[in-house]
Amino acid sequence: MSLVAVPQSLMFPGPLALQSGHAISDYSLAYETYGELNAARDNAVLVCHALNASHHVAGVYEGQPRSEGWWDNMIGPGKPVDTRRFFVIGVNNLGSCFGSTGPMHVNPATGRMYGADFPVVTVEDWVNAQAVLLDALGIDSLAAVMGGSLGGMQALSWTLQYPERVRHAVVVASAPSLTAQNIAFNEVARRAIVTDPDFNGGHFYEHGVVPKRGLRIARMIGHITYQSDDLMNEKFGRALRDAVEGATAGSSESAADFRYSTQEVEFQIESYLRYNGDKFSEYFDANTYLLITRALDYFDPARAHGGSLKAALARARAQFLLVSFTTDWRFAPARSREIVKALLDNRRSVSYAEIDAPHGHDAFLLDDVRYMSVVRSYFERIAAEESLP
Amino acid sequence: MSLVAVPQSLMFPGPLALQSGHAISDYSLAYETYGELNAARDNAVLVCHALNASHHVAGVYEGQPRSEGWWDNMIGPGKPVDTRRFFVIGVNNLGSCFGSTGPMHVNPATGRMYGADFPVVTVEDWVNAQAVLLDALGIDSLAAVMGGSLGGMQALSWTLQYPERVRHAVVVASAPSLTAQNIAFNEVARRAIVTDPDFNGGHFYEHGVVPKRGLRIARMIGHITYQSDDLMNEKFGRALRDAVEGATAGSSESAADFRYSTQEVEFQIESYLRYNGDKFSEYFDANTYLLITRALDYFDPARAHGGSLKAALARARAQFLLVSFTTDWRFAPARSREIVKALLDNRRSVSYAEIDAPHGHDAFLLDDVRYMSVVRSYFERIAAEESLP
Repeated sequence: MSLVAVPQSLMFPGPLALQSGHAISDYSLAYETYGELNAARDNAVLVCHALNASHHVAGVYEGQPRSEGWWDNMIGPGKPVDTRRFFVIGVNNLGSCFGSTGPMHVNPATGRMYGADFPVVTVEDWVNAQAVLLDALGIDSLAAVMGGSLGGMQALSWTLQYPERVRHAVVVASAPSLTAQNIAFNEVARRAIVTDPDFNGGHFYEHGVVPKRGLRIARMIGHITYQSDDLMNEKFGRALRDAVEGATAGSSESAADFRYSTQEVEFQIESYLRYNGDKFSEYFDANTYLLITRALDYFDPARAHGGSLKAALARARAQFLLVSFTTDWRFAPARSREIVKALLDNRRSVSYAEIDAPHGHDAFLLDDVRYMSVVRSYFERIAAEESLP
Repeated sequence: MSLVAVPQSLMFPGPLALQSGHAISDYSLAYETYGELNAARDNAVLVCHALNASHHVAGVYEGQPRSEGWWDNMIGPGKPVDTRRFFVIGVNNLGSCFGSTGPMHVNPATGRMYGADFPVVTVEDWVNAQAVLLDALGIDSLAAVMGGSLGGMQALSWTLQYPERVRHAVVVASAPSLTAQNIAFNEVARRAIVTDPDFNGGHFYEHGVVPKRGLRIARMIGHITYQSDDLMNEKFGRALRDAVEGATAGSSESAADFRYSTQEVEFQIESYLRYNGDKFSEYFDANTYLLITRALDYFDPARAHGGSLKAALARARAQFLLVSFTTDWRFAPARSREIVKALLDNRRSVSYAEIDAPHGHDAFLLDDVRYMSVVRSYFERIAAEESLP
């Protein structure tokens, strides 16, 4: 049984106050819902997205069989988050390039596209905007909020900003803040974009160009950090480029020998990175990339509590499921364990699963029997506790 | 007692046959020597350099007290490689931008600068050129060849290409080949350089420009992979930029709050990366960067032996010291252990030290008491075995 997704959108007059001190008015939020809100309006699950994703979480669009949502393996009828039982909401964040108000939209105050003038948004700002959307949908309290990576940071922040509105939080492959190395990778990607001559200070739309060189580099760096070293060795190793020029990756024999070139592709890993970089640069907005990586950098709930994560999480009232993956070196299991420890120190109810998976950070998007069954069991427990049918 | 270094250079008519099938003629090699070659001409130690280094291994230049060689902590009178006993030779590799013939030199065949037309060089080619230099210096056999990282690959290759000319090989923080992830990072750096509009297909010299944007990105990526995550957290953590604009890094208090900007520096790690990227782009040649990273990619002695490192290393006759560092994630200890195992499988004499050091790959250049004492002991053993005074 496949789910048909219907994108929706709501306009809000605002103003929505932002952490930076600025505010945003007349903004729209794109969202999708799956399943039905029950009469008690208490079976809602909010799904928060990471860097390169959107409100299109599950299902396919009418007549587009290959348009599966980014967490379609996780959410749908009979899936770990079962939409026959839960009313699932996917929302696109402010500053994104996939539907909600972002840098490619017109700033009502100036009549020009926002571009680089789009206000800096934080995880906390996104959560506030999501709360406004829930208000509009008549949802006071969430059965659960969930997300992976940056989405997990939003789920965690929900429990601190609106403790009374969240009963469960599912935080997957996430972290309580970025490390210096995480920030460093973000910064290299941003510099690649900002120093691309086609960036034009972030107002490239008016010049009819796109800083594709920078976006390609950003995406290539991303791909390296999303995967484990072991998986890359297994998938690509030192295999040479395809023997037949222009063949689909992996479809043909690899070449027998080097061509001795610094600029042409020699290894399959190079084709893979170039291909994914090119594809990304065709659809992702450069200003959005800057905004979203900055939101990652800024997130640090312990900061306002003198660096104490325990003190920061004292406000949380939800029950928690945390999941991490052994080969994730971007957001390593140790980072999830920091959250687990801080919650336990506050005597919160926490389940924690450290999944032995080879896929690195990307694992949170992939099918893994143990991972899926952990999430399934957790949502069955929620349904049982809350007597959902 | 401080060593005064004197750069020297020798011209060779060639042609030197290269692995690519091309050849190079009329090339020069820049080198330095420290200590004295003994009458038996058997106390020579060749030091091979890594990506961003040169023949200037030890000592300082006359009147330039801050011009220490890149391994000055390791090599000199009374140092682990004691120049009162050994005659140490540092040589700059072909394709470099620090003195030996490279892309910034004139191609005698065309009368134009080589630029992107400089032939692709490999670790094996470099070793062959170094052997020609040793011939010119009248040195048949090396007491030792040594190097770290890419320099370690050259030391290893010496034992395979000229087994009868090497009595000891010291291979530090190295690997028998790059992993897919290693190649991936090199490829991102190369794409950043090649797609910089100022690269001009590698003939930027003629246009009076330098692809600095690409070089900056390349260097920033390099810096991240040279350091351990833990060290970066310790040195920079999430500390905000210096409170006083333009202050020397680390010299002042850090700022108290975010400025909420995607393009300005917020965190100290960002200043550090930008500063080092800028500095590097002022002096390093873009074509050299492409050539040297490619030489890294290509190195894989097992390749000609069906992937068997054991078979590849069967030719080696030298005794070996291998050193790795626990937090080096670029060339992890496991990669050194692969070499150790293949040598032991061939019943070669191998000493191996895995140094518990926090500095990541950079550790091979830094002072670490245990590391220095391991190398010192090894060279004392060489001196004793060979009855050097």
